Amino acid sequence: MRAIVFKEWKQFPELEDVARPVPGPGEVLLKVAGAGACHSDVSIFQDFTAEVPGNMAKGFVLGHENSGWVEELGPGVEGIEIGGAYLVYGPIGCGHCKACSRGQDTYCENAATNPYLGIGLGRDGGMAEYVTVPVRNLIPLGDADPIAAAPLADAALTPYHAIKKALPHLNGGGRFALVVGLGGLGQIAVQILRALTGATIIATDMKPEAMAKAEAAGALTVLGGPDQVSRIREITGGRGVDAAFDFVGVTPTIATAAGSMAQGGRLTVVGIAGGLHEWTFFNTPYESTITNTYWGTIEELHEVVDMYRAGQIVPEIETFSLTDGLTAYRKLADGQLSARAVVVPHD
Amino acid sequence: MRAIVFKEWKQFPELEDVARPVPGPGEVLLKVAGAGACHSDVSIFQDFTAEVPGNMAKGFVLGHENSGWVEELGPGVEGIEIGGAYLVYGPIGCGHCKACSRGQDTYCENAATNPYLGIGLGRDGGMAEYVTVPVRNLIPLGDADPIAAAPLADAALTPYHAIKKALPHLNGGGRFALVVGLGGLGQIAVQILRALTGATIIATDMKPEAMAKAEAAGALTVLGGPDQVSRIREITGGRGVDAAFDFVGVTPTIATAAGSMAQGGRLTVVGIAGGLHEWTFFNTPYESTITNTYWGTIEELHEVVDMYRAGQIVPEIETFSLTDGLTAYRKLADGQLSARAVVVPHD
Amino acid sequence: MRAIVFKEWKQFPELEDVARPVPGPGEVLLKVAGAGACHSDVSIFQDFTAEVPGNMAKGFVLGHENSGWVEELGPGVEGIEIGGAYLVYGPIGCGHCKACSRGQDTYCENAATNPYLGIGLGRDGGMAEYVTVPVRNLIPLGDADPIAAAPLADAALTPYHAIKKALPHLNGGGRFALVVGLGGLGQIAVQILRALTGATIIATDMKPEAMAKAEAAGALTVLGGPDQVSRIREITGGRGVDAAFDFVGVTPTIATAAGSMAQGGRLTVVGIAGGLHEWTFFNTPYESTITNTYWGTIEELHEVVDMYRAGQIVPEIETFSLTDGLTAYRKLADGQLSARAVVVPHD
Amino acid sequence: MRAIVFKEWKQFPELEDVARPVPGPGEVLLKVAGAGACHSDVSIFQDFTAEVPGNMAKGFVLGHENSGWVEELGPGVEGIEIGGAYLVYGPIGCGHCKACSRGQDTYCENAATNPYLGIGLGRDGGMAEYVTVPVRNLIPLGDADPIAAAPLADAALTPYHAIKKALPHLNGGGRFALVVGLGGLGQIAVQILRALTGATIIATDMKPEAMAKAEAAGALTVLGGPDQVSRIREITGGRGVDAAFDFVGVTPTIATAAGSMAQGGRLTVVGIAGGLHEWTFFNTPYESTITNTYWGTIEELHEVVDMYRAGQIVPEIETFSLTDGLTAYRKLADGQLSARAVVVPHD
Repeated sequence: MRAIVFKEWKQFPELEDVARPVPGPGEVLLKVAGAGACHSDVSIFQDFTAEVPGNMAKGFVLGHENSGWVEELGPGVEGIEIGGAYLVYGPIGCGHCKACSRGQDTYCENAATNPYLGIGLGRDGGMAEYVTVPVRNLIPLGDADPIAAAPLADAALTPYHAIKKALPHLNGGGRFALVVGLGGLGQIAVQILRALTGATIIATDMKPEAMAKAEAAGALTVLGGPDQVSRIREITGGRGVDAAFDFVGVTPTIATAAGSMAQGGRLTVVGIAGGLHEWTFFNTPYESTITNTYWGTIEELHEVVDMYRAGQIVPEIETFSLTDGLTAYRKLADGQLSARAVVVPHD
Repeated sequence: MRAIVFKEWKQFPELEDVARPVPGPGEVLLKVAGAGACHSDVSIFQDFTAEVPGNMAKGFVLGHENSGWVEELGPGVEGIEIGGAYLVYGPIGCGHCKACSRGQDTYCENAATNPYLGIGLGRDGGMAEYVTVPVRNLIPLGDADPIAAAPLADAALTPYHAIKKALPHLNGGGRFALVVGLGGLGQIAVQILRALTGATIIATDMKPEAMAKAEAAGALTVLGGPDQVSRIREITGGRGVDAAFDFVGVTPTIATAAGSMAQGGRLTVVGIAGGLHEWTFFNTPYESTITNTYWGTIEELHEVVDMYRAGQIVPEIETFSLTDGLTAYRKLADGQLSARAVVVPHD
Repeated sequence: MRAIVFKEWKQFPELEDVARPVPGPGEVLLKVAGAGACHSDVSIFQDFTAEVPGNMAKGFVLGHENSGWVEELGPGVEGIEIGGAYLVYGPIGCGHCKACSRGQDTYCENAATNPYLGIGLGRDGGMAEYVTVPVRNLIPLGDADPIAAAPLADAALTPYHAIKKALPHLNGGGRFALVVGLGGLGQIAVQILRALTGATIIATDMKPEAMAKAEAAGALTVLGGPDQVSRIREITGGRGVDAAFDFVGVTPTIATAAGSMAQGGRLTVVGIAGGLHEWTFFNTPYESTITNTYWGTIEELHEVVDMYRAGQIVPEIETFSLTDGLTAYRKLADGQLSARAVVVPHD
Repeated sequence: MRAIVFKEWKQFPELEDVARPVPGPGEVLLKVAGAGACHSDVSIFQDFTAEVPGNMAKGFVLGHENSGWVEELGPGVEGIEIGGAYLVYGPIGCGHCKACSRGQDTYCENAATNPYLGIGLGRDGGMAEYVTVPVRNLIPLGDADPIAAAPLADAALTPYHAIKKALPHLNGGGRFALVVGLGGLGQIAVQILRALTGATIIATDMKPEAMAKAEAAGALTVLGGPDQVSRIREITGGRGVDAAFDFVGVTPTIATAAGSMAQGGRLTVVGIAGGLHEWTFFNTPYESTITNTYWGTIEELHEVVDMYRAGQIVPEIETFSLTDGLTAYRKLADGQLSARAVVVPHD
């Protein structure tokens, strides 16, 4: 079968013929419906080196946002229907620590000694005609479109997890939420906040088109500029926001979010740009917190699919054939995509 | 000034001339904008006797859902603007127990020895031209319409409190909520659930008009009948509802709600009809709870006003002059009202 | 190898020679250190019939409270040390529903179609020289005594789970907890409450020895009798208890607990005696809840082991050789045990 | 009566004769039992200037940790017993904002325009024979010693509030807590953590006597030094602490705490030394938070008194007569006290 393979550090991936995989015990073979191209794929082949943590030996099929139809069951698999459509939870931990036991493989206690981080992350992923997946990582899609669903596995699960942890701060009347950075994850964050809370959603970005999309989804927008924080604060009647989500994570975006917090608010930095925040007792509204998050849990991906099936999350995608998959990655690397690229290997 | 006075147990109230009250220390005099007529007022004058708990000596002005404009400040009052519009939190406890300290006078530990339950509940209420109110019980309305706001003080605060305690059960994708009984409180419950959660809202009532209103507000409705529970369960894909709110509280409505619960769900009985639920380990989905609630807190009433000002709660009212106030109570007692009656003493 | 086999409904189990099991993919073979004898085993062979739900076809080795040393790894198993001591999480669900994904196989959504409920519950258990266990169900014991640990898998996990869900009610000064029924689970409940909360613990039972043990563990005790509820309430200064745990579950014990609740308290019925509680709005302190629970999660069993290793849980056991295992069950069935019977197959 | 008055910025207070105060409406006159001398008093008279925020006009009686017996009731006060012993909640906000409505005057929304911060903080405090107190600020002490109780109003309430917000992180087996700084608040923090949680408590300080006290109260201690963080982490088996409380708040203590956090832990900086923490996504364990807190709520002070009456909090005090009150402040300013100084005006 054909597959997009990451072969060498700091080298663009290649479309190759590889052997069709065979599902092991407890696994299924999935005929790929869609595989989302994610910025972190670009980091893998452009930025990473052999020293990068994460146990990702080079030489694997890319693609950690995958969906497909069950083609074949591995030994011992029961209760999974051949032909059924599933979304794939990407992370794979040791399977027997506390974190894995609660379906949060992202925080596996044995990450340092695991053979890979997940499907498409050290282990062969979904940028191929077929992919093998442990049954535990399958999320049933029912009759929902599996192609548009593919990016949900990361681009929706990541903001969903960050928002779910912050929901206690948004539960009630008169709450305010701030979304900084309106790329794929930020737009879906606006949709999730709109569906799950009654908060006034404030959104910021540098691109007018991105702001317009967020407005159409129900957010108020505030342009960048020196008085951005004071304008955000004005919308909140002076008190600040109860939850902020920074999908960029550079020093200036963290500063905008941190400066906009209400007493008791929660600021979650999701973007991994590594910005610096100079925290002091006195520049922090009382009991306002700052934290980070990474991806999400299996159970949360079930809930993301519930929202997708209810029409509460509508991912914006652009499809590419497997033949054009490298074009998708090239456009992504060059910043020429305005929607999530989904590679569709079969037609 | 004129006022509607509850003079004698089991006797219809009367419209009388009484002395305009004088605000005590820490109180304001409010020029009444609106006073909502509530079913519990009818219970007071139709059903209660001297033996009823609650320290409500007969002989007081009715009206515990009040709004108005500050006319005069009592001794020592600061920070309150003359002419400003406020909604009134009705309950008044001892003021120095744990419950009162957190603004939950409804659960005052000294309720048995307090002189009254609240404004319009033993102490003179808002069915009059003026009413006195402790500053602690004032909720600023800003430029929002104070007349339509009046019923919020009970008819919105009560479902808001019940729902807020249940929000952790509704936080996330794929959740279901059930509202049983679509009178004034039930309709507002649908609005609050719609605004604050992404849950699928299922609503039931005996009256088609009430069901139609709930549908317009975003609920699915299920008619009464022998298969009601199975139809509710079908909507939920078999799993049942995560939170149910019974605004009636008779044995059959509690049975409908209890039979519809999901594993881990929360059933809150708000209606005080006193129905019986025969609880056993085996008729209860694991970790599903049943409980009751009563009214709400001061802080929650601030949040209700936030929702009202944001257009998330839209109370349906019918206004009456003070002269026609007794007509409002008569219609209420006879079940001839389809909206909340608000008495408007000034024009 | 020798094993205690449940062969036929309503028939006492037998000690037999059976084939030593072979670990499948993702499983290990455990050399059994200890296997606790539980009341539910007695129910299985004394009370159950082919009609009983739970997919427990007759003809399996008993024992769902197991510990042991890893003897052999099945195909594909990594990160597990040969010779290491482990406690075993008993329940086994479908492995791919929401509940299983969070390690709560007890509430598996596909329980009705699973081939068994768990290890020793339809699938061969630990009353044998060896048992096979999926790696996901292994909890490392480190250097702690694995024999005394065996009963923790149920007799500690069950009260731990019930208490953990109730901890928000016990978090803070001036709280009260009630434990009804001081058998094995109730005694461990007292230990857990003592370690994890600052609550005053009130305990009740019919047996003076059981009450004495609970007192030694830090509880106040209240004898049964017509004024039991009023004496419990007196200890609490009139307000009632914030959390109650009924490990019996008959109508009178539920009545004692329900009558002792404080406003906002949580009553958890753990004992499956099927008692009836006649719930009404008016016999329930405001916002007090009643619920049930069943066993616990994998992650919680890790935490139970943490408490055991810290000396916070000290199970009381009586050991029996495998040869005497049937004697242990006979004594258990006859009520002649005062500690948990642990069968120790190897010496 | 005699009182210790803060008369002028940057000037030591004086013992003077002032008029005995008269309780206003809703207030009582308290005969002072004890008044704790707090470091923040020293800041007021040593460091503050007219520009300091907090609306503390110079010229008031010091003392914000007060207890006493009710001597006289102001107009309208009911339900308070003459002669009864009470602890005093110090903060006083506007009385009608959201924060004040829930008894959290510390976060009053109108702090900027209030006439004072609280009793002994702009308004006359308890370093005198008598003090006036709003009934809402009274916490009944029953038959507990009111003199030793006085410091609880701040030195116990402050760590109690910080810990209570962190309890969800400490709920369960296998948890770790870190206390940095073992002065008065830190020692009480150890006591509270010991009583309310099952966590392993790790404590650090520069003074061996302080470490010895914490050990006696049940903490493990780790000396300062370059490998302090690694030794803390070693105690936790590598994972770090679930909750840390920094009662110092300088850059190095925040660094110690921040470096010791577990995934998902909560670091609360209580000490107001203004240290800097350079936060980045990559130096923060996933979902670990950092925040600050200030004092506590009325309801929490009730709970602190519950713990004091149960013997779970035992403040260490040194008493001084009112005549020697200035000596107490001088010793405090000079770092010559090892226990909390409590001024006892009557004998």
